[in-house]
Amino acid sequence: MDCVFCKIVNKEIPASIVYENDNIIVFMDIQPISLGHCLVIPKKHFESICDVPDILASEIMVKAKELAPKITKAVDAEGFNFGVNTGSVAGQAVMHAHLHIIPRFKGDGLKHWPSAGLSAEEIKKARDKIVTFLKE
Amino acid sequence: MDCVFCKIVNKEIPASIVYENDNIIVFMDIQPISLGHCLVIPKKHFESICDVPDILASEIMVKAKELAPKITKAVDAEGFNFGVNTGSVAGQAVMHAHLHIIPRFKGDGLKHWPSAGLSAEEIKKARDKIVTFLKE
Repeated sequence: MDCVFCKIVNKEIPASIVYENDNIIVFMDIQPISLGHCLVIPKKHFESICDVPDILASEIMVKAKELAPKITKAVDAEGFNFGVNTGSVAGQAVMHAHLHIIPRFKGDGLKHWPSAGLSAEEIKKARDKIVTFLKE
Repeated sequence: MDCVFCKIVNKEIPASIVYENDNIIVFMDIQPISLGHCLVIPKKHFESICDVPDILASEIMVKAKELAPKITKAVDAEGFNFGVNTGSVAGQAVMHAHLHIIPRFKGDGLKHWPSAGLSAEEIKKARDKIVTFLKE
């Protein structure tokens, strides 16, 4: 499979690895948004986070929350974001599920997405649709 | 405690609830970035995702990945982002840990953060610092 993350897992291409065990690997993003930007990925290939088995997705979250404060401290940041992009429309660039850990610095200028300005009625309608889908 | 999310958990203030069990609750963001934008939160108050016990953080991730495709389908979106902001510097507005599920639509205009343009040397240096911190 021509997956760049699988190649990192298999050590076919180099990466700045931060942590590794039998199930997951954590390495530096090659085009970091901020200093210390890391990716937590399952070693096994799954395109979407939704395809990752519960136990492995849990391990990704638990490892991310364990590592994030240490990464933040190591680079002298003051906070961090976790991000998972699912689908190319959502900015997923590599089709191997991954969780971003992005350290944040005062005045880093990274802007958060604005509110869409939806009405309470529109939100309520979306909620009702979602609840219907959850029942199916 | 004067926490708006605790008040939602305790039904002291209303919210458009999507899903609820003994440990977590999922509801519509009141200032949604996109149609269908939901928050997954632990019922118990923790400020940071890092303070959430492993088993509960795992449940948040597992529920998010279970719900996200259904939410995405319900609102006719094509993908989604998960996001966790930790610390005010990272955009955390409510100091009760929460995971955003943000459905994404073609042409929604939400821009992803750019690369910081760090050199391979700078990335490697950050990696070495992080690995040192992980050993401590």
